[in-house]
Amino acid sequence: MRPILEQEIKEQPTVIERLLSNGEALTGTVAAAIRDFNPVFVCIAARGTSDNAAHYAQYMFGGMLRTPVMLATPSLHTVYGTPPDLSKALVIGISQSGQAEDVRAVLSDAKQRGALTLAITNFDDSPLAQIAKYHLPLLAERELSVAATKTYTAQLTVIAMLTSALAGGDAMLKDLSSLPRLAAQALRLSEDIAGWAQRYRYINRLVTLGRGFNYATACEISLKVKELSYIASEGYSEANFRHGPIAAIDRGHPVILVSPHGKNFAGMVDMCQRLNELGAETLVISNNSDLLGHGTQAMTIPSAPEWLSPILAVMPGQLFALQQALVRGYDVDKPRGLSKVTITE
Amino acid sequence: MRPILEQEIKEQPTVIERLLSNGEALTGTVAAAIRDFNPVFVCIAARGTSDNAAHYAQYMFGGMLRTPVMLATPSLHTVYGTPPDLSKALVIGISQSGQAEDVRAVLSDAKQRGALTLAITNFDDSPLAQIAKYHLPLLAERELSVAATKTYTAQLTVIAMLTSALAGGDAMLKDLSSLPRLAAQALRLSEDIAGWAQRYRYINRLVTLGRGFNYATACEISLKVKELSYIASEGYSEANFRHGPIAAIDRGHPVILVSPHGKNFAGMVDMCQRLNELGAETLVISNNSDLLGHGTQAMTIPSAPEWLSPILAVMPGQLFALQQALVRGYDVDKPRGLSKVTITE
Repeated sequence: MRPILEQEIKEQPTVIERLLSNGEALTGTVAAAIRDFNPVFVCIAARGTSDNAAHYAQYMFGGMLRTPVMLATPSLHTVYGTPPDLSKALVIGISQSGQAEDVRAVLSDAKQRGALTLAITNFDDSPLAQIAKYHLPLLAERELSVAATKTYTAQLTVIAMLTSALAGGDAMLKDLSSLPRLAAQALRLSEDIAGWAQRYRYINRLVTLGRGFNYATACEISLKVKELSYIASEGYSEANFRHGPIAAIDRGHPVILVSPHGKNFAGMVDMCQRLNELGAETLVISNNSDLLGHGTQAMTIPSAPEWLSPILAVMPGQLFALQQALVRGYDVDKPRGLSKVTITE
Repeated sequence: MRPILEQEIKEQPTVIERLLSNGEALTGTVAAAIRDFNPVFVCIAARGTSDNAAHYAQYMFGGMLRTPVMLATPSLHTVYGTPPDLSKALVIGISQSGQAEDVRAVLSDAKQRGALTLAITNFDDSPLAQIAKYHLPLLAERELSVAATKTYTAQLTVIAMLTSALAGGDAMLKDLSSLPRLAAQALRLSEDIAGWAQRYRYINRLVTLGRGFNYATACEISLKVKELSYIASEGYSEANFRHGPIAAIDRGHPVILVSPHGKNFAGMVDMCQRLNELGAETLVISNNSDLLGHGTQAMTIPSAPEWLSPILAVMPGQLFALQQALVRGYDVDKPRGLSKVTITE
């Protein structure tokens, strides 16, 4: 029997298509409310995988709308009782289950102070959806596997749709409409991963690098591999990686480079060369055949505008993480020590 | 001959004392300018160790002054050319050398848009100090070792002094004045680390946990160990750790818990118990004798208000990292693959 996780990974194009078809009107309503509120900045509260979606939002809102994005410090709300003043912010809580208590507390504080609040969850009746003024549902149907996959790309799609609605250009909407097809193509192109995954059966550490829009992808692939295969797996911005962590790289160290074509491409090519000189084992996720040829292992994704590429580039990473769990004989649907809903305060 | 790194670690109480004595007037001037500007939020640009100092500032400014703090996304300024609007922010660049090009670019963009800018560096004539409207020097004298130690605690001290000046209370200033004595005590209490460090000669992975004010400490200890000993070393917020990474913990996995007494203490005690049940090897940095007794290994620090504890709690971590490099026979002053000044764009 195929693991549930694998089925949920395969559902992603369908979920994305459903969001694009059924989520547009509500996204427009939320965009109008945001324009009306005119926030000085955005604050996002999220944990785990949802926190990686927040990283994507930093670049989407920051780069496309020029609105600065901060990530919340929930303990100032829940543990210290000294919440920062978010009254001029759009405060977004992202949580698959919508049950994250600390995320709810951030929205509750902010709402009381006059902030505009928005929840992005998979359940209309979740505590987070209930407390926020607006809720954008993920429309992903129930996710049964503990490791989030289809809800992650749904979160990214919701953020991309909201940004497009706020930016107001037809070009972005047109690009978005190609996403279900590109996502299906990304999954097809990743089918060969099962064939070569056993080479990495005995790795006990892994670094994943990205930058800009794909910093989120690096963090999320890193987290998936860690959750499913218990490998010491770290995700970095390629720039931050140069400021210290690169010291840990020696011959054979596996490094995934998330580097679709885009404005960061030259820096990632340079990093790949440096890693090759160090004798590292480079696994390249890209849509550029030149760079793919420079890696020890290539994971090809379809061509797409850079801002959409994180939704595609994470998919080979999800499948790599799944395969690493399978070749190790782990239960991919129920990683040890985790439950589907984690509530922290 | 003692490594330069060890000498620089030992200099920390002197540097802190120098800052408190000689930095007060300038800190007051900057605090007045900030009050005058009245920022809606703070944006901090920093890389590597300085980025960990930025985490400390998130809790100091956020918790003590209620001013929200975002961490900059430098690539939006340098690579994408679409900088977010920071005109209503106090924008702070933190860099030991003051040569970080991407940090300088963030300040330059923000200044042009009308933001108030502040640099925190060790060199008055550095590019970052030159471009910012204000500069708070670290007064740490030249740091020769590649791994930053005395400049890190100097950065934290500058942030604590600035927060105290802005909060305007005498109580914080009084607490601050005890810092040189407490720092010397923290170093004395850490002298036994050399005696037991060899137990960890063969670890190849390490997790370090903290939360709130000491999230920064967890990240910084993790980075020091990685830079100096090339161990796959990860720093987490204790809350985020529960949302996935804890799956990787099994029998014998070493975990450093940074848990001085404070508002997060109960959560850290709970985490320590959970880790002990999993059979993890827990190394506890604390000033609470009960919790210290629950760890496999205790690292005692002096009692202090929680907001000052990060300046003390990092010290046993620095010495642990130093000892791990020494027991492995590595050059602690020049880790492979790194140089003192890393410039990323």
